[in-house]
Parts: sequence; structure tokens; C-alpha cells
Amino acid sequence: RINSDRLWDSIMEMAKIGPGIAGGNNRQTVTDEDGEGRHLFKRWCEAAGLEMGLDEMGTMFARREGSDPSLPPVYVGSHLDTQPTGGKYDGVLGVLGGLEVVRSLNDLGIKTRHPIVVTNWTNEEGARFAPAMMASGVFAGVLDQSDVYQHVDKDGKKFGEELERIGWKGTEKVGDRKIHAFFELHIEQGPILEDEGIDIGVVTHGQGLKWLQVTLTGKEAHTGSTPMPKRRNAGLGMARVIELVHEIAMDYQPDAVGAVGHMQAYPNSRNIIAGRTVFTIDIRSPEKQVLDTMDGRIREGIDTICDALDIKYEIEQVGHFDPVTFDKNCVKAIRDAAERLGYSHRNIVSGAGHDACWINRVAPTAMVMCPCVDGLSHNEAEEITREWAAAGADVLFHAVVETAGI
Amino acid sequence: RINSDRLWDSIMEMAKIGPGIAGGNNRQTVTDEDGEGRHLFKRWCEAAGLEMGLDEMGTMFARREGSDPSLPPVYVGSHLDTQPTGGKYDGVLGVLGGLEVVRSLNDLGIKTRHPIVVTNWTNEEGARFAPAMMASGVFAGVLDQSDVYQHVDKDGKKFGEELERIGWKGTEKVGDRKIHAFFELHIEQGPILEDEGIDIGVVTHGQGLKWLQVTLTGKEAHTGSTPMPKRRNAGLGMARVIELVHEIAMDYQPDAVGAVGHMQAYPNSRNIIAGRTVFTIDIRSPEKQVLDTMDGRIREGIDTICDALDIKYEIEQVGHFDPVTFDKNCVKAIRDAAERLGYSHRNIVSGAGHDACWINRVAPTAMVMCPCVDGLSHNEAEEITREWAAAGADVLFHAVVETAGI
Ligand SMILES: NC(=O)NCCC(=O)O
Ligand SMILES: NC(=O)NCCC(=O)O
Repeated sequence: RINSDRLWDSIMEMAKIGPGIAGGNNRQTVTDEDGEGRHLFKRWCEAAGLEMGLDEMGTMFARREGSDPSLPPVYVGSHLDTQPTGGKYDGVLGVLGGLEVVRSLNDLGIKTRHPIVVTNWTNEEGARFAPAMMASGVFAGVLDQSDVYQHVDKDGKKFGEELERIGWKGTEKVGDRKIHAFFELHIEQGPILEDEGIDIGVVTHGQGLKWLQVTLTGKEAHTGSTPMPKRRNAGLGMARVIELVHEIAMDYQPDAVGAVGHMQAYPNSRNIIAGRTVFTIDIRSPEKQVLDTMDGRIREGIDTICDALDIKYEIEQVGHFDPVTFDKNCVKAIRDAAERLGYSHRNIVSGAGHDACWINRVAPTAMVMCPCVDGLSHNEAEEITREWAAAGADVLFHAVVETAGI
Repeated sequence: RINSDRLWDSIMEMAKIGPGIAGGNNRQTVTDEDGEGRHLFKRWCEAAGLEMGLDEMGTMFARREGSDPSLPPVYVGSHLDTQPTGGKYDGVLGVLGGLEVVRSLNDLGIKTRHPIVVTNWTNEEGARFAPAMMASGVFAGVLDQSDVYQHVDKDGKKFGEELERIGWKGTEKVGDRKIHAFFELHIEQGPILEDEGIDIGVVTHGQGLKWLQVTLTGKEAHTGSTPMPKRRNAGLGMARVIELVHEIAMDYQPDAVGAVGHMQAYPNSRNIIAGRTVFTIDIRSPEKQVLDTMDGRIREGIDTICDALDIKYEIEQVGHFDPVTFDKNCVKAIRDAAERLGYSHRNIVSGAGHDACWINRVAPTAMVMCPCVDGLSHNEAEEITREWAAAGADVLFHAVVETAGI
């Protein structure tokens, strides 16, 4: 079993960097706070005898040598970046859980056959720069590195320049690594495990996602003196699309979800009818077919809405991944570990996207999940218990060691 | 007749200060640009032999002495502040039209019996700091000066401190002036005059307004892993209220209008269900009864919407004025002037709020309107013709001189 106090203390230590305003964290990707978090993680890795690699996307790879260094390593990790109002565990548990795996191996004096690499993937959250899971997406060859370097945050800053500015742009070519297997521990971010009182989620699948960024263009005009029939109200258009997305998601739930979390009106003045709105639709489903149908219905609906309001629209897909089926053997390694350790477990579909979803395309991959209080995540109040974290890390430890061999 | 070239040139000169990004202006209240615009206006006033007064709200009063200085002055003016994406004429035409009145009197060597005071009211737009018509509202005793000093812009800056910072907080007590009559020239900001090919709007009434700032509080949660029935989506709540406001306004139009131009979601991240939204409802009607009914229906509707979504709400009225009936004699002075000068004219109700609406409570007041292209205002593309401006200023001149006496 891993050292649960050490794991917990490390999580709490990391949480001191980029504190939020309500007990959580604001350590968004490639900010100064992200840089500080990386330094702390690096110090811990070096103290554990790991050797740090850094690629051109800023992803950190901390290697523990295997007894046969020629074998491809088993990778284990997640991300240290957070939402602007994020929790202390989303991502962090997976990175520090990975670190705890090697710390425990050190304690036990065990050398695995395959090397083990603890990984911190850059920009998993996609909050500051779309899309989410950016570095793992480039690693898996799905996203284009020179393209994502140009992606801008809301202040117009470029991802590539910010990565360089904080001093964490490496020289290693991205994706130039052979991966024997990848394991990611993560909090569920949904309510199923807690509701059913189950310790471990064996993640068999991941939902697919589309992010559609919509720009509506109407006409700025006076809210008082412009007759109702003359209005070309981009704010009203946005409101109708938000409702549309909700209704379509409700038609397919529980096999789909949908919402608009990002929305902006211009010029955003009380007495000006919005001339332009920009917002991002987030739709997800474990069924590719459902996702595509929703996408089609949304595009049709936007066309109808805009036609009625005499406004123009543009739709740009700024994020996308298909539903994922994780590797049978890796999934089995997790289920077996939970079984062996006596933890209750069930199969589960990940509602969120994870770096594991991309890495699964280039290497055998699986995930282990632990419950979180009230299923709450992407909220500073995100919470888990020490016991849940320990169970998840225990299962991770066993699955990794089993796969890396002794 | 006034000197229409001089009037036009002055408008174009003022428009150079705080240029917008699309041909209009961004000279929001108590910004550096506002300060610069004030300096230019002051220089022009001094060159025209006027004496400048400045009150604690930053309102400028440029006095041309009358042949009987003991008589209360005739006031004429409007505002120099603009929307963030405002036009070159909204407000400016009224202030510089007032200046043109005294410049023309100077040209003609006419001394009126009553003094004439050209006025630039502070923060008419209400874009940076709610409410609109702030300084005239304090002048009329409807708003509380120490209260509005504390109002903050979106960066948390206080109105009172910003007024002081730009150096335009005067020492004169606000409202300590006897006003014989007040005249305001303004562009219509609506399409009626242009549509009907009429030169002059004789403003008999002004619409009433309510600004309701709504805060919805739901729960931040993950857009992917939170089941639809568990969501408490403040973004969806906002969308429904925006639609509600539109539907209610449609029920009463053309005797009412309604929209939401200001809206903000928090934390505004693509994969976080909005935990909080803040937005301002703008409803207007020339009938107090209609305005009150709309207000009631909106509050009821918000209650129902929030109940269904399990979210909380707060409603704060951040702006309000009742419908206005302008002074019979002042209105007649404008109509007579238009008639005498041979301009086509019609009675009109102002769709927008104006400083004249507040001053009407403490002094006989009326307004003259000229057309604007396509009825467009609160848009950088706001446009008028030289001839329309000249006609409006001619009528203003005659109404003011008639009322001030020779
Ligand atoms: N796990 C997680 O919250 N990832 C962010 C990407 C997503 O929105 O699913
Ligand atoms: N005239 C004008 O646009 N005033 C601003 C206040 C309002 O919204 O009516």
C-alpha cells in the first residue's frame, strides 16, 4: 500500500500555489503559478531520484529507471493546471498519485523491469487556452503544435509565448516517446461512485466531446429608442441558443450532456442592444452517433434562430474528441488491482475528458477513478477524503507495478 | 440662423478626442478622454466670453451674462460623455448646439434679458457607472450625491474618486441654481423622423425606464461529468430571463421596449457550468402603468425560472425614471420656432432618457430632436447630416432666445 499521509500532504502543499478565493485553486496553465507548481513538482521528483525530461509543449516526464532500461516505460500521471475557480484534486491527484507510486517503490526498494515515468501534461483544462488536453493531444498527433502555439487567451496572449515566458518550454520533440502503457488516476467529477458508496471506478470508456464556438453578429443599437421590430439582438440570439443546447441535451440525457459555460456580449453596456456575442457550446456523449446528431440539430437550430432575428452566425469547432474505449488489458490491470486490494469497484464511463483519452490512441491506456463529494468538480469547493485518495493511489500503484513487472 | 459650418466643425473637432475603433467615439464618463473633451469645451466657452462654473458632480455651467443679471438663466445643453462604442452626436450635438447659440448671439451682438448657461452634464450615458443621467439626477434631487460617488465601474473604481482623479470635481453645491427654463437638443436615436422625412421632433414626452440588475446564483460544476438533473445552471437561468424580457416587451410594443445589453457569466470557462450570472434588464414605456406591469411580470417570471432551475436570485433596481411630460410653454417655444423657421415638425416621444427628463422636475423644460440615419444610436456608425444638425440648432436658438427675451 502507498503512504497515504505523504500523498495527502503533497496535495495540500501543491494547493498552496495559486490559491483560489474560496478554498480551491487558480493555477491556470502557463501562468506564473503554473511555473511555481512545476518547480515544486520537479524538486519532489529529483528528491525521489527521478530524471526530468521536458518537451516542446512543456510536458514534464520524470523517469525512474527500470531493471531493463531498454524496455519502453510505463507512464503514470495527469495534470497540475487548474480551472480559474478549480479544486485541489482535479489533475493534481493523478500527478502526485504517480509520484507516490515511485516514492512507495523507493520505500520498498523495488526496481521494476520497465522504467516508470511520472507525467505532468500541459494545459489539460483548456480554460485559458482551448482546447482542453492540449499537450497530450499534440503528443498523440491529433493536434498541431505550431497551430496551438498560436491559440490566444482572452487577453490575446499566445500559448506558445506564454509557455516560453514562464520558462517551461523544453527542447524534446513532442510525441517522440515509446509508451508501454499509460495509467491515470483522477477524481470522478461526477456523483456515481459516492452515491453508490463504491471505492474505485474502473474506467472502461470516455465520453466524446465537441466545443463549438459561436459568434453572432447583430447590430448595436439603443435599448430605449430602437423599435422592437427593428432590433437585431445578438444577446437574444445567444439566449436562444443556450436554451436550444439545453433542450437538445435533455432529449438525449443520460446519454448526453450539454451547456454553455463561456459567454460574452459586446459592447456589454446596459443601454446597448448587443451587436455581437461570442460563446462556446459544450456537448458530450459516450455515443459518437448521439454526439453527431446533437451537433447537427444545434447547427440547424442556430440557423433558424439567427434567421428569425436577422443576425449572422459563425461556428468554429474549437475542441473535439470522439468517445474512447480504453485498453482491455490496462482496464483489467486496474480491476484486478482493486479486487486484490479488497476495494469495492464498478465499471464507469468518464464524463470529463482526460489526457488518458488522447494517449489511448498511441498506447495501451486506462484510468482509475475515486469518488468526490457530491460529484462536484470545476468548483473551488471540490472535495475528496483521504481514504478515497489512498484507495485510488493503491490501485494505481498495483496496476502500474503489475504492468511494469518486477 | 446659426452658423452650421462652425457647429459641424466643432462636432468633428470634439470627435477627435477618445476616438472609437469604427469611426465613432469611446469617451466614457470621468475617463482621461472625458477630461480632455471638457478642456476643449472650456477653451471654446472662454473664447466665446462665457464664465465657467463647475459643481461637485463635475457638471460644467458656462454663463453668458444677461442684460438683467438678477434674472434666472435659461439653460441649454446636454452631455459630452459617450458609450464605449458610441457615436459622435449623441449628447455632443446638444452641448455644442448650446455653444453655437451663444456664439451666434455674439455674432449678432444680441444681449438677452435672462443670462444663458451652456451645460455639460456629467455621466449621462450610465455605461461606465449606473445609473444614466447621474449628475442631472443629483441636480434634480432624485439621486443622492454621496451614494452615487460610491458607485463602481466594472474594475471596481468609484465614480467620486474618478471624478476627482481627472480634476473635474468642482466646489459648487449641486442643485443650487435657479433655472428659468432648460432646453436640450438631441438626435432622435430612433427612426421616426427620418422615416417620415421630418426635420424637427418637438418632444412632448419621454419614456419611463427601469434598470433591474439581476444576480443569479447556481452552482459551478463540470460541464461533462455533472448529470443534467443535478445542474444548477445560472447561465441557462440568464438565457431564460433574457427571453422572458423580450417576450414581455413584445406583448406591449410599440408602447414598450425591453432588452438585456449587459450580461456576465462567472467563472466564464468553457467547461464550467456558470455558478453565477449578473445582468441588467432595461425596460421602458411612455406609460407608467405599462412599465409597472412589465416590472411585475418580470419579477414573477424570474421567480418561476429560478425555482425550476433550483437557483437563487437577487434583483436590484439600479436605474429608474417615470415617464415625463415636458413643460407646455417650453414645448410651444420649440414648436413655434420650427414653424417660424419653416421646418417640418411633429410631436414625438423620446425613447431614450435625457438630462432634460430630470431637469423637467425642477424647471420648465423641453427638447428638440433631429433625425439620425436609420434611427441608429449607441453604435459607432451613428450618423446625421449637416442640414439636420443645423435645423435642430436653429430651432434651439430661436426657442432659447425667445425664452430668454431680448
Ligand atoms: N478532467 C477535466 O476536467 N478535464 C477538462 C476537460 C474537460 O472539460 O473534460
Ligand atoms: N440619450 C441617451 O442615449 N441616454 C442614455 C440613457 C438611456 O439609456 O436612455
